[in-house]
Amino acid sequence: MGRPMARNLMRAGYKLAVHNRSPQPQQELESEGAIGAGSPREVATLSDIVITMLPDSSDVEAVLTGPKGVLAGITKGMTLIDMSTIAPGMARRLALQAAEMGADMLDAPVSGGEIGAINASLSIMVGGKEEVFHRCLPVFQAMGKNIVRVGESGAGQICKACNQIIVAGTIQAVSEALVLARKAGADPAMVRQALMGGFAQSRILEVHGQRMLDRDFAPGFRLRLHLKDMKIALSAGREYGVVLPGSALVAELMESLIAKGCAEEDHSALVKALGDL
Amino acid sequence: MGRPMARNLMRAGYKLAVHNRSPQPQQELESEGAIGAGSPREVATLSDIVITMLPDSSDVEAVLTGPKGVLAGITKGMTLIDMSTIAPGMARRLALQAAEMGADMLDAPVSGGEIGAINASLSIMVGGKEEVFHRCLPVFQAMGKNIVRVGESGAGQICKACNQIIVAGTIQAVSEALVLARKAGADPAMVRQALMGGFAQSRILEVHGQRMLDRDFAPGFRLRLHLKDMKIALSAGREYGVVLPGSALVAELMESLIAKGCAEEDHSALVKALGDL
Repeated sequence: MGRPMARNLMRAGYKLAVHNRSPQPQQELESEGAIGAGSPREVATLSDIVITMLPDSSDVEAVLTGPKGVLAGITKGMTLIDMSTIAPGMARRLALQAAEMGADMLDAPVSGGEIGAINASLSIMVGGKEEVFHRCLPVFQAMGKNIVRVGESGAGQICKACNQIIVAGTIQAVSEALVLARKAGADPAMVRQALMGGFAQSRILEVHGQRMLDRDFAPGFRLRLHLKDMKIALSAGREYGVVLPGSALVAELMESLIAKGCAEEDHSALVKALGDL
Repeated sequence: MGRPMARNLMRAGYKLAVHNRSPQPQQELESEGAIGAGSPREVATLSDIVITMLPDSSDVEAVLTGPKGVLAGITKGMTLIDMSTIAPGMARRLALQAAEMGADMLDAPVSGGEIGAINASLSIMVGGKEEVFHRCLPVFQAMGKNIVRVGESGAGQICKACNQIIVAGTIQAVSEALVLARKAGADPAMVRQALMGGFAQSRILEVHGQRMLDRDFAPGFRLRLHLKDMKIALSAGREYGVVLPGSALVAELMESLIAKGCAEEDHSALVKALGDL
């Protein structure tokens, strides 16, 4: 995700210092005009705005607070933007640490996948101070299209968790409907078409429903990564005292599929938890 | 539902014989030009096509097979159309009985509620022979807009069950997301708006999500009736060997809300099962 996002920033005229834990993506971006940095700290010393895009909470924590991390190179008035999908609580704690050192931080997770990253059409859900959001808006606009500030620090991550809850729950509902249609002798393709015209309409019925009918589970968004995000959502539920029974059920079905070897398939493969479509 | 549907048929130029178990709707339709019939059997003796619109499987069975029922007045070449939402198995059995007496039968449940019935904009999901469907299409077009034949006898009811599964599962997912947003300190209205632009988009997020935010649970579609339909879906799942864990969970939550006195509220009140939004 980071590479195409960095390219879109350069295309929009931003000068970039880049660091990546594995060398190849960094070398590619250097050959396209970015300054190579030896560590997250060095990126920070060279930049006004530091953007992180990493797999999980622990990665962001390490890259920010580690000995050669971003916070070790921070200066007053800098802005940090974390675009990874991580735990809202972690996002809040890191923003507090940054604030203590005189820097602003936004959590700005995205949806839209690698295709959205390449086409600069990511949805970006932002949490943090309104003035900081407005200052960073041109940066976001270089990478995305549907850019919304949803609240204070951590709210971007909450919004992303809400997105993953709805997407997972809708995939599950569509799965149950299409498998029932097939097994009970209705044509699932006709059922999908009929239901698109009414209250059952959704982007998931349209896109993932079609993938299920085609039995095409090439990702897309990998089941393994969706499960990671569901665990963030469930853990946020526990932290804020919200019961999430549907999400817990879907996460459990995802676990069972991953145990069966479907970790790298598209999340529409959730339908397989119900048997053959 | 039956009254506005009958009005739209008369408006389209069809001559109607009507019977209703409680007298008032029938008297109204008589005053508007329909012929009053003393029983379902009498409706059958006066008609080429008989349409039934009733609350549940047992009602349709009684009105069709009872001593003064439709089948007692049936003649060869007649067409029966049941537009109620009933068990797919019952729809198939009644169609077989009608076929033995030389009559065709379509199952044609609808979605779109009373407003759809009044505006002749119902979605109509039809199961039965293709030639019978085409013969009856003008009749359906007088009452609805999105009219799809999804397969043989019973398939219309299967499609309706699929619709109710998806609607219920999506309401549950949207509920979990919006409650988490609120409790975790994001603005649920902003979250809804942000998510409408991506893969979490659905008619349910749009319409029922807004009802949840407004705490407006005036029906709409009553929780009690949605639970009835979920029981049809779950029972079809058992009949055809399909596991429906998400649907079973939502049905259970609906039961709990109905026990708390929410039976006559809109199905978006499902959000209350998670505590206050």
